[in-house]
Amino acid sequence: MARTKIYVDGPLGTRVPFTQVSLAPSPGGREENPPVLLYDTSGPGSDAEVGLAPLRRPWILGRGDVEAYPGRPPQARDDGRSAAAGRAVEAFPGRGGSSPQPLRAKPGRAVTQLHYARRGQVTEEMAFVAAREGLDPEVVRQEVASGRAILPANVNHPESEPMAIGRNLLVKVNANIGNSSVTSSVREEVEKMRWATRWGADTVMDLSTGRDIHTTREWIIRNSPVPVGTVPIYQALEKVGGQAAELTWDIYRDTVVEQCEQGVDYMTVHAGVRLAYVPLTARRVTGIVSRGGSIMAAWCLAHHRESFLYTHFEELCEILASYDVSFSLGDGLRPGSVADANDEAQLAELRTLGELTEVAWRHDVQVMIEGPGHVPMHKIKENVDLQMEVCHEAPFYTLGPLTTDVAPGYDHITSAIGAAMIGWYGTAMLCYVTPKEHLGLPDREDVKQGVIAYKIAAHAADLAKGHPGAQAWDDALSKARFEFRWEDQFELSMDPETARSYHDQTLPAQPAKTAHFCSMCGPKFCSMRISQDVREYAAAHGVGAEEAIELGMKEKSAEFVAAGGELYREA
Amino acid sequence: MARTKIYVDGPLGTRVPFTQVSLAPSPGGREENPPVLLYDTSGPGSDAEVGLAPLRRPWILGRGDVEAYPGRPPQARDDGRSAAAGRAVEAFPGRGGSSPQPLRAKPGRAVTQLHYARRGQVTEEMAFVAAREGLDPEVVRQEVASGRAILPANVNHPESEPMAIGRNLLVKVNANIGNSSVTSSVREEVEKMRWATRWGADTVMDLSTGRDIHTTREWIIRNSPVPVGTVPIYQALEKVGGQAAELTWDIYRDTVVEQCEQGVDYMTVHAGVRLAYVPLTARRVTGIVSRGGSIMAAWCLAHHRESFLYTHFEELCEILASYDVSFSLGDGLRPGSVADANDEAQLAELRTLGELTEVAWRHDVQVMIEGPGHVPMHKIKENVDLQMEVCHEAPFYTLGPLTTDVAPGYDHITSAIGAAMIGWYGTAMLCYVTPKEHLGLPDREDVKQGVIAYKIAAHAADLAKGHPGAQAWDDALSKARFEFRWEDQFELSMDPETARSYHDQTLPAQPAKTAHFCSMCGPKFCSMRISQDVREYAAAHGVGAEEAIELGMKEKSAEFVAAGGELYREA
Repeated sequence: MARTKIYVDGPLGTRVPFTQVSLAPSPGGREENPPVLLYDTSGPGSDAEVGLAPLRRPWILGRGDVEAYPGRPPQARDDGRSAAAGRAVEAFPGRGGSSPQPLRAKPGRAVTQLHYARRGQVTEEMAFVAAREGLDPEVVRQEVASGRAILPANVNHPESEPMAIGRNLLVKVNANIGNSSVTSSVREEVEKMRWATRWGADTVMDLSTGRDIHTTREWIIRNSPVPVGTVPIYQALEKVGGQAAELTWDIYRDTVVEQCEQGVDYMTVHAGVRLAYVPLTARRVTGIVSRGGSIMAAWCLAHHRESFLYTHFEELCEILASYDVSFSLGDGLRPGSVADANDEAQLAELRTLGELTEVAWRHDVQVMIEGPGHVPMHKIKENVDLQMEVCHEAPFYTLGPLTTDVAPGYDHITSAIGAAMIGWYGTAMLCYVTPKEHLGLPDREDVKQGVIAYKIAAHAADLAKGHPGAQAWDDALSKARFEFRWEDQFELSMDPETARSYHDQTLPAQPAKTAHFCSMCGPKFCSMRISQDVREYAAAHGVGAEEAIELGMKEKSAEFVAAGGELYREA
Repeated sequence: MARTKIYVDGPLGTRVPFTQVSLAPSPGGREENPPVLLYDTSGPGSDAEVGLAPLRRPWILGRGDVEAYPGRPPQARDDGRSAAAGRAVEAFPGRGGSSPQPLRAKPGRAVTQLHYARRGQVTEEMAFVAAREGLDPEVVRQEVASGRAILPANVNHPESEPMAIGRNLLVKVNANIGNSSVTSSVREEVEKMRWATRWGADTVMDLSTGRDIHTTREWIIRNSPVPVGTVPIYQALEKVGGQAAELTWDIYRDTVVEQCEQGVDYMTVHAGVRLAYVPLTARRVTGIVSRGGSIMAAWCLAHHRESFLYTHFEELCEILASYDVSFSLGDGLRPGSVADANDEAQLAELRTLGELTEVAWRHDVQVMIEGPGHVPMHKIKENVDLQMEVCHEAPFYTLGPLTTDVAPGYDHITSAIGAAMIGWYGTAMLCYVTPKEHLGLPDREDVKQGVIAYKIAAHAADLAKGHPGAQAWDDALSKARFEFRWEDQFELSMDPETARSYHDQTLPAQPAKTAHFCSMCGPKFCSMRISQDVREYAAAHGVGAEEAIELGMKEKSAEFVAAGGELYREA
């Protein structure tokens, strides 16, 4: 009746974390209930100023294909306008678990998991993922090799515990964190990352747009046990004082290198927002709502030139390949309202993302594809079907989608509906939406609410897809519920604290947690108990389903009344 | 920029309530935005001790087919064990808006909406529903006549504002209230009913199982502007001291008459739990979880006889027909875990409910069919398809379903996912689930959270089904959002208070609510604003979608930079 963190030996010497929930025996000691192992994203824990140990460093160095180098010289503008204005920033005390110098591929070497997988190599990262997912390592290798899954693992983020994103794996959840020019501090963001991974976030994206962008990211990466994603155009924009028209390929390129060296594991790149698509948004109800999409649209319009992200895409592939940074090809033209769902602007961009996927794969760079947004239920499946077709089964990574626009304040729910469905249809990772979406920046409680709503959606999708082992968790909890093992039910819950506290609100006394009744019906009558009486009666008399009817239960019913006693015993 | 309650003249002299949301013009007075009318379930409001005015009395009496009669004499046990034990109960001060004596059909007359509809009569009730739903009254009549919709309207609940439940109408939401032997008081339950209808509950079910059952129900019905449902077996069980084996048809029958006279609009009857089906549940993970189902299963087992609800079903139809009480045929064998979904016990009962539907229809009694429960996503559609087939398209009324068992404390979310989907597939009414499900009795805040999660699910289903007019609400809100009409966005929200307070948490100052930016990106950059710049630029230059590309925008881009100025104006 307790949760503990355990490490299970995986292939290739890996040690893989799980949350183990130990269970009480069934009532009367009828049978033992084996412990349940739950996927665990929370990491080993760290002192924020020291960072995590570099779990993957020996694996990375052991492959002999990377070299340390001095790295790009830091610049004042890396921390954005506030740094340029001379404001003090609390620097991360060291490089933490990463190398004193950044790593990159040796000349002529490819260091991506896609490259290894394609040449038939099962890496320690793949072995770790396989153990986490309960799969054969060879299956993981095949998924990565085919491009159906990615394993985001920058050589400069050795602190991360390997995970993979693909539709034949468990559905994953991303939590967005990061400051804005309006609110929040560096330490708050580290705390949000920890809080998000505690509740099950599989990756985090640092979407900072305000002060101290470089330094905030450093603190987060050094402490993050999960892959970290970013949108480099946000930082690039800060470097040019927020003037989209001032952006250049050189500034963008430099920002990407800066982030590769820091250890960012995947980057959202809105290279599909082409000049020709911008006018397609003019008659929409909500135009362009992606921040990155609108930055690039503004740049294209201001210069009347094709997007520099599109024209320099091959060069970008070369950079990302050197660090094993994965592409998350952004959907800059995603719909911002149900009215705009699945329109030509969205689909034109999607086709371009399919074309870019093939380019990236030629460079051995891993790719996933971002998707919407706001989509009514009947238009969700089309998104997945089209994405799989035009993007050659590269993993899909969607924001929700929200299934209605009318409930700001509850968009974790409007979108959990869409997220569960799109996960079932084949989306590999779900980007969470918090209750504050459209209204404000999420605080700690919003982050928790968003992550849990999305873990529910992801798990519901795993169940519907029949992922091996997914239902064992449900069955263990339902059995505990049916047997009134209250503590087991709490501990098996996605959020044990909340489950326990809700129960205590109605029935605060300790005995209620061992009682064979609950607050809904009270001690005098309980449907679960009757049902158990039925079962025990059937079992005691060796009566199976149809048999019972055949045998006739008249005589047995008399026994039931006499032996089972009244159906409503006082507890 | 405000919500007001208005009454719109409908056919046959009806006056139909709506919430009207007045909107501000678009920025710069570019265009007026017409007010939006939202479906309104909150009723005209009442003094709890007086009750509501009898809106429908003239319609009921005007048909000339009912008679007043002295009614069944009250009995001490009507208020359950506590009353029998002599505890004081606060009686409702009068009959409120209902007759001093109960009404019933005159001998030989049929008074159900199904009867009227079948003979081609559009009643005031149907006219009211048509105006609420934006449909032709003849369409409503046809839906009721075919049995595809029900219009629950006991002649003894004249206070109710007519509504109908059917898959070609808006998807409806029910909220369960009621005390248990553990907690809560009469006035609390009236307050929960009001609170639930304020947030959009289309019906309420009084599931009281504790003290003062009769009196609590009287207070609720006299004050309820929405149809009230019950599960009469709960009260009958209290009358026999909680001993299921002691139940008899006479006690049950007497309880049904008592509730018909009070004004209950629909009753859950678990007549499909037949003796032969009980053993089918023995190998389930969670047995029988329906309270009514387990009561009847226990009775069947104890007596080894066929359920008295099944054997006396025709007599029950005759009683319900006299008051126009609708059947809600209960799913006593619904699955209580995803493991048990769609099993033979559940489907055997469903087939019996289909058989009983035809019996009820022969008596002109309106019928809906209750459904699960706990169902993983991939098994949801089968429930609707089977129900439509075997129950001849009688409206489906489901509890959730929960799409996973592992998140107690969040079952409003696990089930909103299933509810939205099953609503889209054709379920007519969704029974809410609150965050306290499986853990405790819902308090006021839980009721609100449950109702809103289900209004989201119902509206998402309306959108996906393409219900006429459903999307206009989304479009109005999204347009307000895109134009930074913050107050309009709040007022159009399903929960204006929460939307406003979340916004204020990040940007408390009043100017922020008129500012053309939000807290996500801050005043220096906003994707919505860029997008508007794009649109205004295109409009100003007469540039349409493809045109823009054809014309070439080089020259225009220079203008854009010069005229539109920088893209990031300070707010």
